Order: sequence, then structure tokens, then C-alpha cells
Amino acid sequence: MSRRRSLGRSALARFLRPDELITSEGGCRAYAGDKWFASALPDAVVLPRSVAVISKVLAYAHRYEIPVTARGAGYGYVGGCVPLRGGIVLSTERMNRIKEISTHDFVGVVEPGVITAEFQSQVEKKGLYYPLDPASRADCSLGGNIATNAGGPRCLKYGVTRDYVLGLEVVMADGSVTRLGGRCHKNKTGFDLHRLFVGSEGLLGVITEATLKLLPQPPFRACLSMGFPSMKVAAKTIRLIFAKGFLPAAVEVADKFTLAAGAKRTGSRLFAGCQAHVIVEIDGQERSVRSDMRSLERALKTLEPIFIRRGYGESECEAIWKVRREFSFALRDTGLTKLNQDVVVPRGRLEGLFSFAACLQKKHGIQVACFGHAGDGNIHVNVMVDRTDPDQEARSQRVVDELFQQVLEWGGAVTGEHGIGVARLPWWDLATSENVRRMHRLVKEALDPKRILNPEKFV
Amino acid sequence: MSRRRSLGRSALARFLRPDELITSEGGCRAYAGDKWFASALPDAVVLPRSVAVISKVLAYAHRYEIPVTARGAGYGYVGGCVPLRGGIVLSTERMNRIKEISTHDFVGVVEPGVITAEFQSQVEKKGLYYPLDPASRADCSLGGNIATNAGGPRCLKYGVTRDYVLGLEVVMADGSVTRLGGRCHKNKTGFDLHRLFVGSEGLLGVITEATLKLLPQPPFRACLSMGFPSMKVAAKTIRLIFAKGFLPAAVEVADKFTLAAGAKRTGSRLFAGCQAHVIVEIDGQERSVRSDMRSLERALKTLEPIFIRRGYGESECEAIWKVRREFSFALRDTGLTKLNQDVVVPRGRLEGLFSFAACLQKKHGIQVACFGHAGDGNIHVNVMVDRTDPDQEARSQRVVDELFQQVLEWGGAVTGEHGIGVARLPWWDLATSENVRRMHRLVKEALDPKRILNPEKFV
Repeated sequence: MSRRRSLGRSALARFLRPDELITSEGGCRAYAGDKWFASALPDAVVLPRSVAVISKVLAYAHRYEIPVTARGAGYGYVGGCVPLRGGIVLSTERMNRIKEISTHDFVGVVEPGVITAEFQSQVEKKGLYYPLDPASRADCSLGGNIATNAGGPRCLKYGVTRDYVLGLEVVMADGSVTRLGGRCHKNKTGFDLHRLFVGSEGLLGVITEATLKLLPQPPFRACLSMGFPSMKVAAKTIRLIFAKGFLPAAVEVADKFTLAAGAKRTGSRLFAGCQAHVIVEIDGQERSVRSDMRSLERALKTLEPIFIRRGYGESECEAIWKVRREFSFALRDTGLTKLNQDVVVPRGRLEGLFSFAACLQKKHGIQVACFGHAGDGNIHVNVMVDRTDPDQEARSQRVVDELFQQVLEWGGAVTGEHGIGVARLPWWDLATSENVRRMHRLVKEALDPKRILNPEKFV
Repeated sequence: MSRRRSLGRSALARFLRPDELITSEGGCRAYAGDKWFASALPDAVVLPRSVAVISKVLAYAHRYEIPVTARGAGYGYVGGCVPLRGGIVLSTERMNRIKEISTHDFVGVVEPGVITAEFQSQVEKKGLYYPLDPASRADCSLGGNIATNAGGPRCLKYGVTRDYVLGLEVVMADGSVTRLGGRCHKNKTGFDLHRLFVGSEGLLGVITEATLKLLPQPPFRACLSMGFPSMKVAAKTIRLIFAKGFLPAAVEVADKFTLAAGAKRTGSRLFAGCQAHVIVEIDGQERSVRSDMRSLERALKTLEPIFIRRGYGESECEAIWKVRREFSFALRDTGLTKLNQDVVVPRGRLEGLFSFAACLQKKHGIQVACFGHAGDGNIHVNVMVDRTDPDQEARSQRVVDELFQQVLEWGGAVTGEHGIGVARLPWWDLATSENVRRMHRLVKEALDPKRILNPEKFV
């Protein structure tokens, strides 16, 4: 209560409109967490509509050392925007204007609250393309994507969010507004500071505008969906795709537990007898895509998949991806709690990761379902916990511990696209060296000396 | 002289082998500059063979506040490795081992002194691909490429050096060794610190090892070389390529002055009557590339180029690129001094840039030759100065001033791939805001508080 008072709500009210400030406990509760389990009640939520107001909020918070946790659409999976020390949650949801989509310069200029899918659809109307496709793109915001360096299936060919951020307007902890980078597709003016903010999870500044690189829209896409008798053959298939010199837009994989859940949800008999499933997507000019698909199919058939389904063009591809997108819901349908670990392994360890996950499942008696971005080595290892069994809680912790330990031993990473947030905090020390943590502290202290931005997180 | 003594050569000799330390003025002179005009004599040159020795050199220099300027192969174009305050030049030329090329993980692990073209050829022998192709790739080193975030023609499709740096080992100013990032193709573990060092021009740390992302090698490539009656039609051609949904590996352009010099050098009559020239390169599976080239040619023919020359496969493509590579030499053949400004403009300003350069030429009576990476908007604007005419020197300064001013007004950048170094220092304040410079200072102070690394440069 004392902290609530010390926040100075009346001071905030001076530069916010009435509908831009929430201080009721009920109102604040909606901003206490994201799609992960952690939550913490802020003392106030501000929903500014302009950079000028965000600057004032931060200058005020800086002066009185009030924690400020920036928040996109709240669709993160690791509790990154949970205000662990209370204070102010700064939601960018009202800053949702697409300021410009330039077909001349191949850039889009956006406020952080723009929903990713909405931006993509506006961009595509103009014959341009923003390839990033995190699973939550219908709900997540571009600001959140930038703060977490979001990915998705198409990263294999197209890279991650970072690769599309040409310029940023950032409000620093002290309220000063800095424009970094610009609208050029190439730029070597000094340090690459704007990209330091990409993936910084709100610890270094608040993003108030982004200039994003756009590509020419590929006129055509096609997919192959393939079932395999074992993960070994699926892995061999993936190796063969690369060996033939293909760099597909996406190469996705799923294991048998995921397939079983998927089959149950959709009623499809497609996966009967399959222990693994691979999707490959290729895009480009229609003729070339068709030719690529034919030669790819010819090559992959030699590995004797159980089935191959082709998708040519938008609607057939979407039908294939629809099944893939159901996997996540299907796992939830099991009634078990899904602890999604988005680990990454060096590409050559993909098969090893799947075997290791199967071993963990056997050893600890906990279901482990794996699917994800095989091309990047970025696999969602879902530890499926029966919360009604108190013993499973502890065992699932051991599964995650052993998984992370093995992944790090292989030179992998504990997170490929979700970030550290609150969920990965317990493994931060394991995943980094003292020197790496020291460098994080030095950079944090330089840019946010009072540590008001998203405190209690990984720095 | 006193500084030379204060350097403590005998101290350095304690942890360096005799052939790893140069202190003679004659020996040091070879390390005073790069391919640009500036030079400054270091007090000593060290040529270590290991990270352990580099760590000792930096710890020593840090203790006694001796400037240390890291140096790759010395093939920079902006004087980035010129030791403006003397002290130690730390050359990484002896650290030239390719430690690993992994066909499983699609990564290469290298020491900084490895020559770029040598790495590429080793990589290609294994069926993999490292697409970065700066013009100096036969001579420049990967460490230098990383320090300057080097580019080249293929950046359009493949991105810049930064996009391939997965992990770095860096020796900090105080001698501490930090390994950042790793060997995964995706990684969201904390801040993207290793990429902060990419393009930092030796101001933040010394790179001693890099883990680079590799791609599957595209099996085939093809080029179109086209001459045009005007830059207007060339620019229209480039717009049409993108409008048709192509993202070629490269789209290069050259103006008439460049073409005239090229024709003179090579004796070729190919460019007769051409005011502009465009190269498009597409790579991928052979069938698809051939199909893409056919439809591209069909579309571009409607714009009535003066000639179209096709190059299918390695040797035919190389023949086309050979002419393009001659442009730089051809401009030197004129006997004029070539001041290469690697400006970038937003893509839509390409035509405007060429007109503006032509205006500058007329206004100041100085030849201006433009060619470069049209797809990125990154054009080498070569101001051709007759040094025998003292008046031209001053006028060329005005040309560059007006060029940079206009480029910045358009939202462009004064350097797209060469960096700031010494050459762009006079325009640093114009190219950045006070807040941007402040952020540079904060980061620099955090990582190199005694400012010993490459001092007197842009921070």
C-alpha cells in the first residue's frame, strides 16, 4: 500500500488522460502477466498514445526510481512483461498506428502496438512481404516481437525479427528519446545500437517506433507434408534437403506424441503408423517452386516416407499448416499442463535431441512432446505435466533441468525465440558465464543506471 | 620518443616471441595505415598467435593506459585501423586458422586472421556456402569483415556479415576473455551482445574467434548483364525486378562515367551508347534458376535495354562479374584520385542519387562516377579528383559535403559497408544526433572505461 501511494498516481494523472491510467486492483490484474504462469500486480498501468507521454512517464519514474515494465500485447510465453517489482506497467497497446508502408523504399514504419498479422496483411496488400510468423501473430504486437526478437517457422530462409529492424525510436530510462538506425537497408554509421534493443526484453529502453525492412512478396508457395516410420529417417530427410542445396522457407518436424495428440484432436488418420512428421515449404516464382518441389519430392521419396502430401498455392499450403498449428492445441487437449521449452541445438544434434527427449520421458515417467523449427535446430520440447499428481511437478522440474544441461553441453541454447523472462531465470546462470553476465551488467548500468526498467529479470 | 619508451617494449617482449613484436620504425611503418590515405605510426606492432597472448597484451596496455588498435589484413577503405594515438597495433594476421567447418551444424569456426576468400573456398569444398563477398575478399580477413560488418553485392538476398556471426570470442579492454553467442542458428539468451561487436571497428574489444553460420551451397547461378539508354530506364528495370517478386542474390548498377572508364580499360565495345548498366544474379536449383532467368528476361525486355547478355553457370557468371570488378581499377586508370563514398539511400531514392551526383559533377566541375549495390541502395559514389590541380582538392570536399548532406536529408547513411574510420569522422556529428553520440559514449565507457581501444575514432 505504501508503495502504491509512493507511486504518485496524481502526478501520473497530470500527463495522462483519464483513460490512459489504470490504478484499480481489478484493472491492474489484467496486466499482471502474459501467457506464462507467473504474475505480479503492478501499482499502475499506463496506456499512452504518444512518445511524448511515454517520455514523461519515464522521466517521472526515473526521478522517483519507480520500476517500469514495458508490455506489448501480453502474448509472451516466458513472463517477460511480468512486473516483478510492481510499479508501472507501460502498455503500448494504444500506440497501434501503421505510420507508413513504402513500396518505394521497401520499409514499414510502425508504432509498437501494431498487431503482427494486421501489419502483414496491410503489407501484402501492397505486394510486399514481412516474413516473420510467430505462432501468436494474430495476437502479438510488433513491439513485443522486437523486444523478444521473435521467430517462427520461416526464420530458416528469412531470419528473425532482428534482421528486419532497420531503425528504432527508443525512450531511454531517463525519458530521453533517441532515434537509432534509419530507413536504409544497409547502414554502418557507428555501433549497431538499435539492434542491441532487439531482444532486450524491455531492460534497456522502451521502443516507441520501428522501421522494418520489407521484401518483395514471393508470388507462390508450396509445401510437402511427410510422415516417417522413425525420427531417424525424418532427420535423414532434413539432411538430404540441405545436401541438395535447398534453403526452404521452413522445415518443421513433429514427434509421435505430438502426432498422436494431433490425430486425436483432428480425427485425421493421416498420421497412422507415423513416428515423425516433416513439413517443407518453398516459395518464389510459381514455375520455379513447382520445379523445386518436383525434384525435392523425387529425392525425398528414396527415403521411403509413409506418406507425402503436396500443397501447391496459398489454400493448399494453409491446409497443411493448419494441421501443424493444431499441434499446440492438441497437446493442451490432453488435459496435461504443457511446459514449452524452446531449446535450440546445433543443427547436427537434432536427432540426438529427439532421442534424449524420449529417454527423459522413459526415465522420469513424464510425457515429452517435441515439435518445431528443425531447420534452425529450434525445437519446442513440451514437458507434459499432470498437475493432479503432486509428484509429477517435481519430476517435471528434473526433466527440464536435465534437458537444459544436455542442450548446453551440446553448445545449444535454453531459448531460441521466447526469451529469458521469468520462466528461464532459474537457468540463466547455467546458460551464461560470469564474464557474459558481467557484460550484461555493464551495458545495463550504462543505459539504465537506476535499474528501473523491467527489474528483477536476467540482469 | 618518450612515449615509445613509456610503452615498455621489454615488458611486451616478456610475453611475446621475438617474431611477434615489431618496434623498429621501418617495421612499424607497414602497419601505419590501410587502403585509405590516413596513416599514423604505432610505437609497436604485436602479432600474437593465441588468445592467451592477446589477453596479456591487453591487460598490460590497460594497466598502463596504452592505446591498442586492432588490425585485420589492412584492407579497409576508411582508415579504421590507423593508430591515431600511436601505441600498440595488434595485428591478427598470425591468427589465421580455420578451426572447424561443420557440415552437420552448418557452422565454421575461425580465427580472425583467416582470409575471406580462403575460408569461402574451404567451405565450398564441403558443399557449404558463406555468401559474403566484399570486393577485397581475396585479401581481407574475416576479423576485419566482422569489425566493419562488411557487405558486398550479395547482401541483397543474403544479408551482411552480422547476419552470419553466431558467436564470438572477444578480449575486452582489460584483457578478460569472453565467449558470446554460440554455434546455434537461433539464440535468445539475454542481450544480443556478440552482434554489438560486429561493426564496432575495434572500439569495444578484440575479436579472437568467430563462429559463422553457413548455408547449403546453391547448386547453380545465372546473371543478366544489361545496358540502358538512361539511368531512368535502369532504375525502372530495378523496380520491375522487385515488382515481379524476385529477390535476386545481387542487383548491381553502374553509371556512364564508370562504363566509359571500364570500356577504355577493357577495350570492350559492349557499353557503346549505354548510359547505365545493370547486373542481376539469381541462384538456386539449376532448373529453377533457368526458368527465373527466362521470365525475368521476358519482363525486362519490355523496357528495351540496349543489350542483354546472359551468363549461365559459374564461368559465364564470372565473366560478367569480371567486367564489373574492373570498374574500380578502370576508375584508377583515369589517373585521378578516387574518393570512394559508400553512401546508402532509401531504395526509392536511387534515381535521385544518380541525378544528384550528375548535378554535383556539373556544378563543381569534378567527375563523379557511381556504381554499386542498387538493390540495397548502397552506391559507391566515387569523387574523382585531379590532385595536380590544387583547386580540385577544395572543390572535391564541397562535392562530398553536399553529397552527404543530401543523402542524410533523404534519410540515408554516409556509409553502408566501409565504416566511419578516419575518412568519415568529419561527418560523424552531421550523421548522428547528440543522443545517439551519447549512447555510443555510454556503451564505450561501459566496455572500455580507459578508452584504450582504437582511440580518437568516432566515440
